[in-house]
Amino acid sequence: MNENRTAAVEPFDAVEVIRTKRDGHRLSPEQIDWVIDAYTRGVVAEQQMSALAMAIFLNGMERDEIARWTAAMIASGERMDFDQLSKPTTDKHSTGGVGDKITLPLAPLVASFGVAVPQLSGRGLGHTGGTLDKLEAIPGWRADLTNEQMMRQLEEVGAVICAAGSGLAPADKKLYALRDVTATVEAIPLIASSIMSKKIAEGTAALTLDVKTGAGAFMREESDARELARTMVDLGTDAGVRTVALLTDMSAPLGRTAGNGLEVRESLEVLAGGGPADVVELTCALAREMLEAAGVHDADVEKALADGRAMDSWRAMIAAQGGDVDAPLPVAKHTEEVRAEQDGVVEGLDAMGVGVAAWRLGAGRSRPGEAVQAAAGVEILAHLGDEVRAGDVLARLHTDTPERIGRATEAIQGSWSFAPAGTVLPQRRIVIDRIA
Amino acid sequence: MNENRTAAVEPFDAVEVIRTKRDGHRLSPEQIDWVIDAYTRGVVAEQQMSALAMAIFLNGMERDEIARWTAAMIASGERMDFDQLSKPTTDKHSTGGVGDKITLPLAPLVASFGVAVPQLSGRGLGHTGGTLDKLEAIPGWRADLTNEQMMRQLEEVGAVICAAGSGLAPADKKLYALRDVTATVEAIPLIASSIMSKKIAEGTAALTLDVKTGAGAFMREESDARELARTMVDLGTDAGVRTVALLTDMSAPLGRTAGNGLEVRESLEVLAGGGPADVVELTCALAREMLEAAGVHDADVEKALADGRAMDSWRAMIAAQGGDVDAPLPVAKHTEEVRAEQDGVVEGLDAMGVGVAAWRLGAGRSRPGEAVQAAAGVEILAHLGDEVRAGDVLARLHTDTPERIGRATEAIQGSWSFAPAGTVLPQRRIVIDRIA
Repeated sequence: MNENRTAAVEPFDAVEVIRTKRDGHRLSPEQIDWVIDAYTRGVVAEQQMSALAMAIFLNGMERDEIARWTAAMIASGERMDFDQLSKPTTDKHSTGGVGDKITLPLAPLVASFGVAVPQLSGRGLGHTGGTLDKLEAIPGWRADLTNEQMMRQLEEVGAVICAAGSGLAPADKKLYALRDVTATVEAIPLIASSIMSKKIAEGTAALTLDVKTGAGAFMREESDARELARTMVDLGTDAGVRTVALLTDMSAPLGRTAGNGLEVRESLEVLAGGGPADVVELTCALAREMLEAAGVHDADVEKALADGRAMDSWRAMIAAQGGDVDAPLPVAKHTEEVRAEQDGVVEGLDAMGVGVAAWRLGAGRSRPGEAVQAAAGVEILAHLGDEVRAGDVLARLHTDTPERIGRATEAIQGSWSFAPAGTVLPQRRIVIDRIA
Repeated sequence: MNENRTAAVEPFDAVEVIRTKRDGHRLSPEQIDWVIDAYTRGVVAEQQMSALAMAIFLNGMERDEIARWTAAMIASGERMDFDQLSKPTTDKHSTGGVGDKITLPLAPLVASFGVAVPQLSGRGLGHTGGTLDKLEAIPGWRADLTNEQMMRQLEEVGAVICAAGSGLAPADKKLYALRDVTATVEAIPLIASSIMSKKIAEGTAALTLDVKTGAGAFMREESDARELARTMVDLGTDAGVRTVALLTDMSAPLGRTAGNGLEVRESLEVLAGGGPADVVELTCALAREMLEAAGVHDADVEKALADGRAMDSWRAMIAAQGGDVDAPLPVAKHTEEVRAEQDGVVEGLDAMGVGVAAWRLGAGRSRPGEAVQAAAGVEILAHLGDEVRAGDVLARLHTDTPERIGRATEAIQGSWSFAPAGTVLPQRRIVIDRIA
């Protein structure tokens, strides 16, 4: 009984809203609009939003509740608009994984077909690296652009990878920080609304989602990843954004590197027409989806990698943001090799072990704002399907601070599992499903 | 991935503790001890405890988790000790209801048998009044005693009703304030541990619980009230306190008044050997339990009410705390009558409607610290089983501020339900069950 608690100017009582979700009922559209707005204004306290987030975590939200929640977060800030551009825009978001450098070759590849690719990205926290951290390994490259700079680059170059401004969905920014300390991150309605509020506010007409599953992903279980993909596709579609999701495998790392400068180097190999097969496969699959959504049908993306058009687009993109495209990438001061203790064929390589090792070597941060090492990371020499003999090098660890090597080795050393020598393994399937 | 988040000095990570309960697992004894202690120290943030409270609300705690949680709250503060007294102590706690003035006649009645009755009480919030608010209607009476004053009064008079010191279970005090604003009050493990931590810290050897159920109670459903009673009896027993619970009916108000001074007047009728049958019945039932637990067997409590011994004990108790036992009780400046619109026999009287009306008239508060009116409240003239004719007075509303009458009338006017004139109703059963 606290009917007099709320001042007359507020149309709802936070306790009543929490109780509604706690007791397993639907939040009304008006309750959702109010609670997000009042939280942004500081009228709903952090501890109240925290209790609500846990109630949502445990009792869920229905499709229309999630849509309204997302819309309310969008309404908490500004919206961008790409309509003034002379070309169609197509955007991509990945839920993140170990060695996931796909954005780096993908954005210039897609842009080389005359499409605008705005990639508003973040920095990494924990075992998965951030796209901006990777590009910052390139001497001179700047992540921060004004809106005007971004628009001009989209028009002239086509591809932009830059930091998201703080004006988009500020409610999400506040809520994400709260979820991080209250064990309410992994709730599908909250993840989906967090990602999609920023993407919809960004104003893209088409969006391709890369939703990862497996040991190195946020969503380890395929069923959870599938539900997340479905929820996000529905949210995008309901908001008028052409949205498609690929469900992709993150049981093993993508490619042969995890770490900022190392991943730039591998991306350059892909843009030069080479690179690891899994990275090429996923880059091309996502590029086709993004181009299709932008109205470019049956694009020959492999050819654009092979003939240098994608590389030209990369060089223009990096140069436009101050990067020296010809400067050598930084090299780590120390390396250490991890060797096999047995013979066999690599049948498993745990993405989490590799990710944590790269993180511990200095490639990632534990706290927002911490500096990362441009050259630190893991170079994988024995990948899935490779035949290995005891004593062979499985991986090379790179760092500027050798005291980190011990704990990194601990994290990575059990990551390989082996089948008897001579075993032929089935080809790894990177794209598990397409959800539209 | 936040393994570096917690400073090395803390043995646990709050996020990990929340996640344990969120995922439906048991909290370990060490996790519970740490989280309560760290919350008291401010290391576990309010928003983290809020998320944990919601996870406990929705996923529950097992018997030994609740016991450990209670012990950790006791350990957060000081403990009292009545061993120095020359007589046995026996304590009582009620979960609260409308018109529940039982503590007022009960404490002196039990004390009149040579037993010490320490009643550390609180002030009311919402629709149920607080015992201290009621006694403060007596001119001169003071709720705040030092520990020494309380001990002396227990020794000399036997009965003490006073404010609980802030040193008992400070973790509970902090947690209760948080639960109040985060819709996590009504969780049985949290209610039981909150009540029992204070009672066990208080150091009583015997405890009788009055757990109410029905429309005017905190636990509306009998099954919930029964589970709460069982949980508290187990907690007390496990901590070495002889604990018994009576499950009692709170579908209709107790007695014929709700409001501070009005309830003191009704209590005086009971102490003078009269008063409403339901109040007398419950007072005597609880007195017998309290005396039995203190080793006084087969006490004739009705006789102690009839022959003035209980009243003598009351006068001594009130006078010891500065109260003028002969001063007239305050009278409200305005009264208003609520009249019947039909004939019939009262077969239902909604305790919640009466409680909210008394609250709105000024007897209760909406915010901690607010002043209450000593004379405000509801006097019920048509009680269960009474024969009524259209136009008869059902209740009289008392207040010093007549602008409150409109909303109070709204709250109370639908509270009576009627059977056809001449219907004979079964006798109301106040004590539903005994749980030991």
